[in-house]
Amino acid sequence: MKIGKETIPHSAICTSNSETIVVRGKDLAVELIGNMSFTDYFHLLVTGQPPTPAATAVLNATLVAIAEHGLVPSVQASRMTLAAAPDALQGAVAAGILGCGSVILGASETSGIFLEEIRVRAGDGQDYDKAARQVVGEYCAARRAIPGYGHPLHKARDPRVTALFAVAERAGADMTYVHIADAVEKVIPEVVGKSLMLNVSAAIPAVLLGVGFPMTALRGVPILARTAGLIGHLTEEFQKPIGFALSYQATRNYVYDGELPDNFTPDHA
Amino acid sequence: MKIGKETIPHSAICTSNSETIVVRGKDLAVELIGNMSFTDYFHLLVTGQPPTPAATAVLNATLVAIAEHGLVPSVQASRMTLAAAPDALQGAVAAGILGCGSVILGASETSGIFLEEIRVRAGDGQDYDKAARQVVGEYCAARRAIPGYGHPLHKARDPRVTALFAVAERAGADMTYVHIADAVEKVIPEVVGKSLMLNVSAAIPAVLLGVGFPMTALRGVPILARTAGLIGHLTEEFQKPIGFALSYQATRNYVYDGELPDNFTPDHA
Amino acid sequence: MKIGKETIPHSAICTSNSETIVVRGKDLAVELIGNMSFTDYFHLLVTGQPPTPAATAVLNATLVAIAEHGLVPSVQASRMTLAAAPDALQGAVAAGILGCGSVILGASETSGIFLEEIRVRAGDGQDYDKAARQVVGEYCAARRAIPGYGHPLHKARDPRVTALFAVAERAGADMTYVHIADAVEKVIPEVVGKSLMLNVSAAIPAVLLGVGFPMTALRGVPILARTAGLIGHLTEEFQKPIGFALSYQATRNYVYDGELPDNFTPDHA
Amino acid sequence: MKIGKETIPHSAICTSNSETIVVRGKDLAVELIGNMSFTDYFHLLVTGQPPTPAATAVLNATLVAIAEHGLVPSVQASRMTLAAAPDALQGAVAAGILGCGSVILGASETSGIFLEEIRVRAGDGQDYDKAARQVVGEYCAARRAIPGYGHPLHKARDPRVTALFAVAERAGADMTYVHIADAVEKVIPEVVGKSLMLNVSAAIPAVLLGVGFPMTALRGVPILARTAGLIGHLTEEFQKPIGFALSYQATRNYVYDGELPDNFTPDHA
Repeated sequence: MKIGKETIPHSAICTSNSETIVVRGKDLAVELIGNMSFTDYFHLLVTGQPPTPAATAVLNATLVAIAEHGLVPSVQASRMTLAAAPDALQGAVAAGILGCGSVILGASETSGIFLEEIRVRAGDGQDYDKAARQVVGEYCAARRAIPGYGHPLHKARDPRVTALFAVAERAGADMTYVHIADAVEKVIPEVVGKSLMLNVSAAIPAVLLGVGFPMTALRGVPILARTAGLIGHLTEEFQKPIGFALSYQATRNYVYDGELPDNFTPDHA
Repeated sequence: MKIGKETIPHSAICTSNSETIVVRGKDLAVELIGNMSFTDYFHLLVTGQPPTPAATAVLNATLVAIAEHGLVPSVQASRMTLAAAPDALQGAVAAGILGCGSVILGASETSGIFLEEIRVRAGDGQDYDKAARQVVGEYCAARRAIPGYGHPLHKARDPRVTALFAVAERAGADMTYVHIADAVEKVIPEVVGKSLMLNVSAAIPAVLLGVGFPMTALRGVPILARTAGLIGHLTEEFQKPIGFALSYQATRNYVYDGELPDNFTPDHA
Repeated sequence: MKIGKETIPHSAICTSNSETIVVRGKDLAVELIGNMSFTDYFHLLVTGQPPTPAATAVLNATLVAIAEHGLVPSVQASRMTLAAAPDALQGAVAAGILGCGSVILGASETSGIFLEEIRVRAGDGQDYDKAARQVVGEYCAARRAIPGYGHPLHKARDPRVTALFAVAERAGADMTYVHIADAVEKVIPEVVGKSLMLNVSAAIPAVLLGVGFPMTALRGVPILARTAGLIGHLTEEFQKPIGFALSYQATRNYVYDGELPDNFTPDHA
Repeated sequence: MKIGKETIPHSAICTSNSETIVVRGKDLAVELIGNMSFTDYFHLLVTGQPPTPAATAVLNATLVAIAEHGLVPSVQASRMTLAAAPDALQGAVAAGILGCGSVILGASETSGIFLEEIRVRAGDGQDYDKAARQVVGEYCAARRAIPGYGHPLHKARDPRVTALFAVAERAGADMTYVHIADAVEKVIPEVVGKSLMLNVSAAIPAVLLGVGFPMTALRGVPILARTAGLIGHLTEEFQKPIGFALSYQATRNYVYDGELPDNFTPDHA
């Protein structure tokens, strides 16, 4: 069935003949394997260009920052899935990635769009405080969350934020979006009425947009990073399984609040 | 419900308090972000140890080798999924990863187990040719495919294999499994009756086992690598969509070989 | 980590002791197995109530209508995934379901919300034509697609729409949303400037809302239905595999529009 | 890339022109919608034939039996995934389905193969006790689990087993596989050394094979059924979210057993 106008598939990423695999214009076996780190290759795949040294530093830092944060919901889902289906590692990884949505992890892109909105609003004058106050005010009026601000555990500034900003500065990255992100944190108390600190989902776009990483690929960074974290957990799950223990603990205090047939008595009641 | 004996979840990967995130014994924000590449961090997450320089070189090379090979089935599945569900990048990545199974990409682990079987069989004498002949013979007798040998496109040796072996040698990695992989390629014609060249799914375990990468994590390497490739393709899909064009082309020559009701005539018949 | 306020998991769907499984207040083994069809059980699971006869008829009709439409993108993705990972049927089903997104199949819910918007707008006067003209006009002004109208293949009214409306009428269902859906089709040419016929994604909510099926569960109907279709295709894939043939055809006319290294010549060039 | 020999996609499930959708030889809109239940349509899709009345009864019973069993691991994974990615219902369903693996739910197919092995072994003499003793003995010797026997909660016979066998008998199904399943349960204590009662994963193939349902589609039954259960839970999750509560409870007793940096003190220590 024909859906849409385009009928010929085309791509600028890869082609090959029986001897050579070409990726982004380079001979994979001769020019890339052994000559490029995985992080730089990821940049090449996504943008078509090798990264600048600043982009390498910042991209590595963001991938390291977001790959792992303990037994978060997506890791639990992934480990439970491996426990139930140990033959299919790819399925357990997929189950974990499916939790990289708009509420958790996916906020990097939403936050990048938000920071860009303030940059455009500020225009040539670059009064980021004023633009931040306006845009945050509009989000509040529309009852939208400020994407990338506030964290259930890290009430003070998330330590990863400070580390990422330091890496960007040391690498000589453009700090525009970092300044915007700081401006937002500063104006939030007066506009929103409570303090919400920058979290890692705002810091990631702030530093990546400063090294030219494309907005449309932002959401890919937490997904790639988290895949590494998931593989770490699933390797441990093969050795010391806890998937079913997590599931057991999760429901120890479970309350059934529906109807019961006559004569039903819970075990250990 | 209690399944299995373990009821208390434990892990050696990560813990945190409100100020510090600890990963594998290190302070994430202070010791890791900005001080470690993503590849090295992946090694740390999976094994608990930072890599040796040889392991860094080899792990980067394998991740680069396997991340991208054009519009393979899993990439097609992923781009079609994004076309149908553009709001959920994580879903499109997951659909692509689900194609990293036993036939495609998942062969790295199977192949690693196969190479290890030969190493153990060879014992102290290290006569890899003899051990390879035995084990390949047993696989043939059991009608099992030789995992990591043969490729639909690359009839000569896959160029990525040569590149990976060169990286391992240059990095000073233990070449035992590489020698075993070569021995298998050499004995296949006489045992199997036709030539099957080493492909990248045998080369990856051959070089990774030589730098101490754990067998149980082998299958994670193509999955992590392919995630990077998928994000490259999905970023392109957002800009120049071909998901529906792929699906249209796939069925242009479609043959329905079931029954038809009376009076049904195909369009354009 | 605590996210959100709720910490005790509760549910009104199921509980059990060592002898009895209770679902929605009924003893599963005694009252439900053998006494209820799967469709009626689905209704009970989702709403907490067994369906009326009208709801049974309409729910069956919608599930049958949307389960199967040939080698659509999600089916192709699913069959390719099984070809690559034949050990994991659940992974191939999951890959297919991931294509039930906002563009394809997921439109049932969006369309239901759209029809409800018109019903509320019409108010007590029930002038659906006028309310439809207003709401369609607002969607146009906001450059939003009219969800559930237009189809790439069925330019006349999709035959499934007629069939679903007939089932609803015969079953004695409330036809309010059907009338609204018709009104929208009637006003579209003058407001949008071209004809867009009702498709199955508008017909499904139109008939289901008329038998009290909840709005929040609408999107589940195409997902459940499509799962049945996917299992049909995957059973065929095990017997007569075409996953790789689809993938081969999809790229026969593939155009690489990126750069090439010197001396690279495509095969068969 | 060409993988395998087949290059033309063909299927006997569905074709269409601009006016008619044909499924398994029938006009979908005219002959199927409104005239067939979803369960019967599932049978038609998978096997190419409408079910006998016995097959309808048994298939409904198995789908009802396995759709729902409370907050099992796959349901937890699914609800956590929706909590993290509420925009993508299809992703949460997919995450739940990915837990239908070899250990949980996927056992239906393995168990069906096991029962068939005994049937073939018994041959014309139909001494199922003897054949069961042999095959169970071989599984024990090979340290393989007896698929479909034993349950963590239901130590007496799972009540769903009794209900399914009663439905099959009442419907006039062929009871051969049921007798084999009973024979296995009877011989297990003497061969294995402990009692392992029939669970629902053996009862499902026992009754379905008796109405001609194909072995290769067995694993699809729990997947389809569980999809209905997941949609029930996810509809509840939209109304009364517990995804994050489950995740919080799961780790309340979490033990980190890795190294710690100096000076790290857990919160509330």
